[in-house]
Amino acid sequence: MDNTTDLIALGRQAQEASYHLATLSTQQKDAALCMIADTLEARADFVLTQNSRDIADGRAHGLRESLLDRLLLTEARIQHLADGVRQIATLPDPVGTELESRKLPNGIRLSRRRIPIGVLGVIYEARPNVTLDIAALSLKTGNAVILRGGRESLRSNLALVEVIHAALEQAGLPQAAVQYIADPDRDLVRQLLRLDDYVDMIIPRGGEQLHKLCREQSSIPVITGGMGVCHIFADKSADVEGSLRVIENAKVQRTSVCNALDTLLVHRDIAAAFLPQVAARLAPQGVTFHAGPEAFRLLQGHTDSLVAAAADDFDQEWLSLALSVRVVDDVEAAISHIRAHSTGHTESILTNDWHNATRFLDEINSAVVMVNASTRLSDGGQFGLGAEVAISTQKLHARGPMGLEALTTYKWLVYGQMHVRE
Amino acid sequence: MDNTTDLIALGRQAQEASYHLATLSTQQKDAALCMIADTLEARADFVLTQNSRDIADGRAHGLRESLLDRLLLTEARIQHLADGVRQIATLPDPVGTELESRKLPNGIRLSRRRIPIGVLGVIYEARPNVTLDIAALSLKTGNAVILRGGRESLRSNLALVEVIHAALEQAGLPQAAVQYIADPDRDLVRQLLRLDDYVDMIIPRGGEQLHKLCREQSSIPVITGGMGVCHIFADKSADVEGSLRVIENAKVQRTSVCNALDTLLVHRDIAAAFLPQVAARLAPQGVTFHAGPEAFRLLQGHTDSLVAAAADDFDQEWLSLALSVRVVDDVEAAISHIRAHSTGHTESILTNDWHNATRFLDEINSAVVMVNASTRLSDGGQFGLGAEVAISTQKLHARGPMGLEALTTYKWLVYGQMHVRE
Repeated sequence: MDNTTDLIALGRQAQEASYHLATLSTQQKDAALCMIADTLEARADFVLTQNSRDIADGRAHGLRESLLDRLLLTEARIQHLADGVRQIATLPDPVGTELESRKLPNGIRLSRRRIPIGVLGVIYEARPNVTLDIAALSLKTGNAVILRGGRESLRSNLALVEVIHAALEQAGLPQAAVQYIADPDRDLVRQLLRLDDYVDMIIPRGGEQLHKLCREQSSIPVITGGMGVCHIFADKSADVEGSLRVIENAKVQRTSVCNALDTLLVHRDIAAAFLPQVAARLAPQGVTFHAGPEAFRLLQGHTDSLVAAAADDFDQEWLSLALSVRVVDDVEAAISHIRAHSTGHTESILTNDWHNATRFLDEINSAVVMVNASTRLSDGGQFGLGAEVAISTQKLHARGPMGLEALTTYKWLVYGQMHVRE
Repeated sequence: MDNTTDLIALGRQAQEASYHLATLSTQQKDAALCMIADTLEARADFVLTQNSRDIADGRAHGLRESLLDRLLLTEARIQHLADGVRQIATLPDPVGTELESRKLPNGIRLSRRRIPIGVLGVIYEARPNVTLDIAALSLKTGNAVILRGGRESLRSNLALVEVIHAALEQAGLPQAAVQYIADPDRDLVRQLLRLDDYVDMIIPRGGEQLHKLCREQSSIPVITGGMGVCHIFADKSADVEGSLRVIENAKVQRTSVCNALDTLLVHRDIAAAFLPQVAARLAPQGVTFHAGPEAFRLLQGHTDSLVAAAADDFDQEWLSLALSVRVVDDVEAAISHIRAHSTGHTESILTNDWHNATRFLDEINSAVVMVNASTRLSDGGQFGLGAEVAISTQKLHARGPMGLEALTTYKWLVYGQMHVRE
C-alpha cells in the first residue's frame, strides 16, 4: 500500500456525493451551512493554531509580508468567515427553479429546470478563506467540490476542511461533498485537470499562470478570469471634477485587485488641461505614470513619477500604483485601443455625450462596460449578487461577476403520454 | 511567398468582422440571409456540379453508400437548404435583448444585455449542408465563423462558401464573416483549437473521436456533445402497448442519430411477459438484441437475433439496429445503471407510477429526462427552438438541444453618474 493520492477514487466519491447533494432540500443545505459556521466558531482555537504554524513556516521561508497577511487568520477574520457562511445560507437557492415550461404542439409539456453542475474542481493560491467560501457556495448549490489550495496554507486549509467534515457528519451529509488534495505533488493538479469522467467544471482562483495552465491542460470546461487590464476613457465632454474622483477611486482605492484601473485614455482636446490635474491628484498618492509620447510631453514638469511607456506597458495588469496613460483622438480610437489591449474584464467611459456613451456601450464587448463609473464597482457584492464565486473573462457559461447561478446548469424535462416522433 | 494557411491572419480577420457583425440590426442580418438563399437558388447548378465531383471522387475512393448519400446534394436538397436559411431569417433575433435591468442601492442602473459570442470555430465531417446551416445561424446571431469541413465534401463546401461570399458582398457585409479552412493539412485543426486570442468557442460536429480531440487539445471553450448512449426504462406499471410503440419509435424510426435508443432496461416483475413482446415487435424490423444474462434467458426462443451482451455493450452508442437489453430490480437499479453508463444525453422512463416518474425526473441529471416519451423527441426542432446548432452533453453554457441563444453571451452594462466605490 502506498499513500499516493488516488484521484480516481476521490473523483468517484465526489460524484457519488453529488448525486446525494442534488436531491437535498434548501432547508437541509442551509442547516448544514449554519452547522459549519457554528463548528468553525467552536473550533476557532484549533484553526488559529494550525494557521500560526503556516505563518511561522511562511516567515521562515521568507514569504513577503503582503502574502503573509493574505495567509493570516485572526479571531476577527474567523468570525467574518463564519458570518459569511451564515449569509450564504440566507441567500435564495437557485436550484430547482424552472426557467421555462410550455406545452408543445403535440401535447408534451416541456420544462427547463435549474440543477447543480455536479462536481467542481477548484484550484487556488494563498488565501485560506477561499477554502471555506467555495465549500459553502458549492454546498448551497448542491455541488460536490474537490479543493486544491496553495502549499503555504496547507495546515490552515486542512484545519478548515476538518471543521467542514465535522459539520457535514453532524448534518448527516457525506463528507465526500468537500474533499481536499493535500498531497504536495504538483502533478496532481494536471491529473485533476484530466479527470473529466468525474469533474464537471474547473475554477482556477489565482494568477495568470494558473489560468493559463488550466486553459491549456484541462479536458474539463474551465471558467477562466480574474485577470483584468481595465481601461477608463476620459472623453472631451467629461465632467472634470467627477472624472478625477472616478479615476482616483479606480486606481488608488485598492491596487492589488483585478478591477483596479490599469490604463487611462484621454481625449486629445482636453489632454493638455486634464492630464496635469490627474498628476496633481494621483502623484501625491504614489502613482507612477507610464505615458505614451504625447501624454509624456503633457505630464512632464507636473510629476516626477513619470516614465515613458514601454511597448508592452499597455498590456500590463499593474496590481500596483502604476498607471498607463495615453492620449487618443476620439471615442473611436479609444475603442480600437481597448479592443487591442483589453482582457475583456471591465472598461469605463467618462463622458456627457449621449452618442459617445451609447457607442462605447454598444461596441465594447467586455464582461462589464460602464458609463461614468469607477471600474472598482465591477464586483459581485456591488452588483447585488449576494456572493461572488469568481469573475469570468471568458464568454461561455458565465461572464463578469459570477453569483450562485453560475454554479448551476439545467436539464430539460419532457412530460409525455407515450408520445413518439412522427 | 508560400500558400500555407495563415491561421492568425484568418483569426484576426474574423475578429475584425465580428466587431462589425455585432453592431448590425436584425433587418440587416435577415436581409443578408435572404440574399444567401436567393444566391444559392441562382447558382444551384454551380453547387451541384462541384458536388458531383466530390461524389465521383468519393465513389472512386470507395466511400460507403451511406456516406455518399450524406454527401450528395440534389436540386430538392438545395431548395431545402435555401428554405432553411429563409426560415432562420424569420426567427426572433436573440441579440440585443436585456436579460435583466435594475437599480442598485447607490443609484446605478445595472443591465445585462445579450450579445454575440464573437468568433466561432466549427469543425465538422461529411455533410455539406452544415456549411450553409452554421453560416446562417452564425450570421443571424452576429457571430463570425471559421469553418473546417471534411475532406470528402471540400468542393461542395467551397462552392457554398463562394455563394455565401457573393451574397455577403452584395449585402455590404465583410466576407470574413464566414471563412473556410480549405488546406487539407490536418495540423491546422490543432492550430485552430489553440487560436484562443481570436476564437471564442469551438463547436465540433461529428463523431466521438472529433469531440475527444477537441476536448483534449483545445485551449478555447468547446461545446461537446452529439454522442448519446440513450436509455429507456420500462417500469412494471408501464402501459404495454404504449411502451412497445415508444420503444419501437426510439429504436427503429431512425438509427444513425444520437437520440436513438441504445439500451432498454426492463423491470424484473414484467420482464418475462414483456420481453417476448418486444422481440415480436422489433426482431421483424431487423433489430439484434444484446442481452444481459437474465434478459437473454427470457428472449431465448423468441428471436434468432439474440447475442449475449459483451462487457462494454452497455456503453455502446449503436447507431444501428442493435439494442442492449437488461433486466433490473426496480427504478433505483435503473437509475444506478443509467448513472454508470449514460453519456448524459437523453433517458426516458415508461411508467404509470407517480413516485417512480418523479424520482426518475429528479435523480437523473442527463440533458434531457423524459417520462412516457420516445428519446427521438430530444431535438431542437421538436422542442420548438426553431433551429438546432448542436446537441450539448456537457453541463456548461448550454445543455441538450442548442438553439440560437446558445450562440450568444451577455455583457453587464453600468449606467453611472460619476459613481465610485465607497
